[in-house]
Amino acid sequence: MSISELFGIELPIIQAPMAGSQGSALAIAVCNAGGLGSQPCAMLGPDQIRAELKAITAATSKPYNVNFFVHQPPEPDPVREKAWRKVLAPYFAEYGIDPESIQAGPQRMPFNDAAADVLEEFKPPVVSFHFGLPSDALMKRVKGWGSKILSSATTVDEARYLEAHGVDAVIAQGSEAGGHRGMFLSEDLHTQVGTFALVQQIVHAVKVPVIAAGGISDARGVKAAMALGAAGVQPGTVYLCCPEATTNPIHRAALKSDAAANTAITNLFTGRPARGIVNRLMRDLTPINFAAPQFPLAATAIFALRQKAEAKGANDFTSMWAGQNASACREMPAAELTRALAS
Amino acid sequence: MSISELFGIELPIIQAPMAGSQGSALAIAVCNAGGLGSQPCAMLGPDQIRAELKAITAATSKPYNVNFFVHQPPEPDPVREKAWRKVLAPYFAEYGIDPESIQAGPQRMPFNDAAADVLEEFKPPVVSFHFGLPSDALMKRVKGWGSKILSSATTVDEARYLEAHGVDAVIAQGSEAGGHRGMFLSEDLHTQVGTFALVQQIVHAVKVPVIAAGGISDARGVKAAMALGAAGVQPGTVYLCCPEATTNPIHRAALKSDAAANTAITNLFTGRPARGIVNRLMRDLTPINFAAPQFPLAATAIFALRQKAEAKGANDFTSMWAGQNASACREMPAAELTRALAS
Repeated sequence: MSISELFGIELPIIQAPMAGSQGSALAIAVCNAGGLGSQPCAMLGPDQIRAELKAITAATSKPYNVNFFVHQPPEPDPVREKAWRKVLAPYFAEYGIDPESIQAGPQRMPFNDAAADVLEEFKPPVVSFHFGLPSDALMKRVKGWGSKILSSATTVDEARYLEAHGVDAVIAQGSEAGGHRGMFLSEDLHTQVGTFALVQQIVHAVKVPVIAAGGISDARGVKAAMALGAAGVQPGTVYLCCPEATTNPIHRAALKSDAAANTAITNLFTGRPARGIVNRLMRDLTPINFAAPQFPLAATAIFALRQKAEAKGANDFTSMWAGQNASACREMPAAELTRALAS
Repeated sequence: MSISELFGIELPIIQAPMAGSQGSALAIAVCNAGGLGSQPCAMLGPDQIRAELKAITAATSKPYNVNFFVHQPPEPDPVREKAWRKVLAPYFAEYGIDPESIQAGPQRMPFNDAAADVLEEFKPPVVSFHFGLPSDALMKRVKGWGSKILSSATTVDEARYLEAHGVDAVIAQGSEAGGHRGMFLSEDLHTQVGTFALVQQIVHAVKVPVIAAGGISDARGVKAAMALGAAGVQPGTVYLCCPEATTNPIHRAALKSDAAANTAITNLFTGRPARGIVNRLMRDLTPINFAAPQFPLAATAIFALRQKAEAKGANDFTSMWAGQNASACREMPAAELTRALAS
């Protein structure tokens, strides 16, 4: 089954949810163009979620997707945090930051009953999860009001797990993809799989439709993904330069520069591996550094540095999430881009 | 231009050269089926090269490819070798090996004048290089007798370098690919690119035809690669279970087992990063370990362990090169497989 049939949309395009770089405006534009627009909620509280969903349902009658993280929040670990801040000490000194003064930055919250309460008001057509699936009780609530459910797999084992736990389609997130790796059954980055191989493997392994993600940035990529057996695609990075995206100017400038040619998977910014444009912090500490606190706690100390650096126009501490076709990011309205992808 | 036109072959399929796992028999079968068969020469001396090329030219009148490594042989480094053998000491003890007694195992030799002398006798239609290109003088010799020249790029920079230095086509070796990464301008594994993104990027960056490699194992994969703009494909792993391959039985058994689902890029077996099926050594030392001597010197100490372990039926120290679609390896004659790929 194609995802057009599954979700009742015209084009087999899901705009990937990108927490921190977009809100309802991008989702609405994609929905109205015939794709499935996505509202990322990982960094929003219940009131903000409600406001965004009100905006979407006021502006479109088309199906839309709401995305949540479903990580297990870690216990704070003062020893690890202290060690991490020691690694960062030279940067704190450079920017005159007193490490004792650092306030928590933007938080990533897992899907919970408070968020589900808001969803229940809207009964969104599609809900997607990242890092696995929520508790059985929460899954039951979401399915209860009829939302279709998606989640990302980075391996065949994860795809089989998701199918066995009731998703309506699996997103095959190849290693080219920007942002957080959805990996949840393994922490082994060495065995993460490229889009080309992963889509084929997951298509063989599960019966539900498979949505390809990672490195898809034009109509050619969409056709190739479908040739590999995908029922639809979920491009993200290519939308980051749209006027409707809220991509910060530092990130936007990097996407349009030669720097976009080099991305790497890093755990420095949040504590979980995510692909972004290589910058000073990643070069200095190597992209994967085991001193970084557990997700999402690593973000706090980095955020303090990021604010200071960005004020000076530097992207040294900015998480500039992007996939391996980051240079393909297009400065055009999201509706036009969505139609171009499906052409 | 498609590679069929470029090389005068019927099908856009190059069988990837796989040193240690095949000789002329596989190449001949692929050539006679209409693809471009490849003879790997990285582990052969001049007389062996001559024997294989005699076999090929006696058995087919079709174009064929001869492949060489073009690494810079390192100076032996006794301090590093000693440190490496210390890492391996528990295994030497386990197998009762006296580290002092270890003889050099199979060597990888770079392309040189002696090899070129043999090639000159045959004037092979296609010569492919791995790890860059040979010296200008050697390039001139090979071009002088009319061979078309190929080499692998793992990044856009490498593709541009190869085009500027006169290759007739670029192999885009995505991170899914089995065996040695062809990387030669960077040692940074973090920025290696998946096939899906790399093919598109290189197609945009160069004018010569682009050959896709990495994760291609069936007709669907071939079609998808062509949709991404490739002029042809170079599958390798899928040929490893053909009766004409010389894949060792331990490697063959792993390819047909669940183990084939997990591959990783490792430097443990030769000193250069190469993708293979995860085994005990890779799990124990992590796939990338900076104690390993420079390519190809790491192979010596491991080879001693490999011989002992294989005698007991264990693949613990065997380099089982394979790409991320290793499970797709097919036990069928290479001619049939070549035609199936192009169907």
